[in-house]
Amino acid sequence: MAERIDNLMHTGLKIIQDDQYFSFGIDAVLLSRFVNVHNHEKVIDLGTGNGVIPLMLTTRQKNIHITGLEIQSAVADIARKSVKLNGLTNTIEIITGDLKEIKDLFKSEQFDLVVANPPYLPIGEGLERRLSAHAVARHEINCKLDEVIGACRYLSRYGGRICLVYRAVRLVELIKLLHDHNLEPKRLLLVQSNISSEPHIFLVEAIKGAKPGLRVLPTLIMYENHQYTQQMTDYCFPGGQL
Amino acid sequence: MAERIDNLMHTGLKIIQDDQYFSFGIDAVLLSRFVNVHNHEKVIDLGTGNGVIPLMLTTRQKNIHITGLEIQSAVADIARKSVKLNGLTNTIEIITGDLKEIKDLFKSEQFDLVVANPPYLPIGEGLERRLSAHAVARHEINCKLDEVIGACRYLSRYGGRICLVYRAVRLVELIKLLHDHNLEPKRLLLVQSNISSEPHIFLVEAIKGAKPGLRVLPTLIMYENHQYTQQMTDYCFPGGQL
Repeated sequence: MAERIDNLMHTGLKIIQDDQYFSFGIDAVLLSRFVNVHNHEKVIDLGTGNGVIPLMLTTRQKNIHITGLEIQSAVADIARKSVKLNGLTNTIEIITGDLKEIKDLFKSEQFDLVVANPPYLPIGEGLERRLSAHAVARHEINCKLDEVIGACRYLSRYGGRICLVYRAVRLVELIKLLHDHNLEPKRLLLVQSNISSEPHIFLVEAIKGAKPGLRVLPTLIMYENHQYTQQMTDYCFPGGQL
Repeated sequence: MAERIDNLMHTGLKIIQDDQYFSFGIDAVLLSRFVNVHNHEKVIDLGTGNGVIPLMLTTRQKNIHITGLEIQSAVADIARKSVKLNGLTNTIEIITGDLKEIKDLFKSEQFDLVVANPPYLPIGEGLERRLSAHAVARHEINCKLDEVIGACRYLSRYGGRICLVYRAVRLVELIKLLHDHNLEPKRLLLVQSNISSEPHIFLVEAIKGAKPGLRVLPTLIMYENHQYTQQMTDYCFPGGQL
């Protein structure tokens, strides 16, 4: 174990990280900014890791309650320590559990917002064969994408929002899966490193039971001359808040 | 009738237009640039209008044969006149016919590339109630989107390409339709007017029978300070050719 306490960007929050497991990435930051979240809502983050998304969401809206679900107990323990360190035990609850057993863990349709930053590679495609904790976080060992989407459907109330960040190469599969689960994609954001690079990730908001009709946001271009663009700064760090 | 002969951008070609029907738009130009087309291929353009896409495709590749299908006989006549005017009667054939009767018009799986710039609004949504020729071109009076995609599937050979331009608001529906017809989206381009505007159209290339996996191209930003961006110029007018 090589835990350390880092500043969570400019939020004033602290986060415990451990490179043996992982440290948070820009995906989590973008997802925390992308979601719409309202006062008094119940939120769940599937595969919460060290709890970065729940922590960040507390800066988006007061009086929300966030559940973080994490399959690896050692990682869930780290997340709980971060929650305690920030005095957020009334706001964030970390639950150790498997997405596959979601129906044993939660009642259906109890959440206003379900977020997930699912692991990226399909089974057998890459490094996940090492079966390390790191691989579990990054790849689809413990859950396949359709299981994630099935859990989103189960957990979200009718009219609730599902927000995901995923690899652009699998945009078609994810959009189709959402649509097939009656989670209609309503808002899409593509993210590319610079003006001439291909978008590598996207963020999507689906609404359970909504009619078709997609709003595509202006593509987010992260860097120009190796610095964050104004667009990226405005998106991720509005008023220096995050 | 108020026909006039226009230059087809910088191609050296002429095109007959009639504002009573329509004149070509940037969608058609983008689609003509977006497609991959190879020597000796057979191409079909569904809903060819005044033939702008077949005409432009002749500048992309020599020794191809392009069929343009148009339901309105008066419009098909204009397209034929343009083809003749440019001395391209050996390269382009304009057929008057209804997409709904595609199986009576063509054998199955005879084309390497199927392109379409389908009408935009679902029936009942807008101006198409006027039932003018203009409305037929722009809206889904004569064909619904699923009929267009069904025709694409019928016409394309296995491994053939289907290239479409469509409204961003219906990205989800189109992607799902393509996927459901075994036309796997493989390449996607979003187009936005300027750096801070939402993409309004997209172009997609699907391949019949291909495995999933999407390449998303850098978002095309058309204007900066009310002029075409370098990116747009490079995309649409490479070497001043088009």
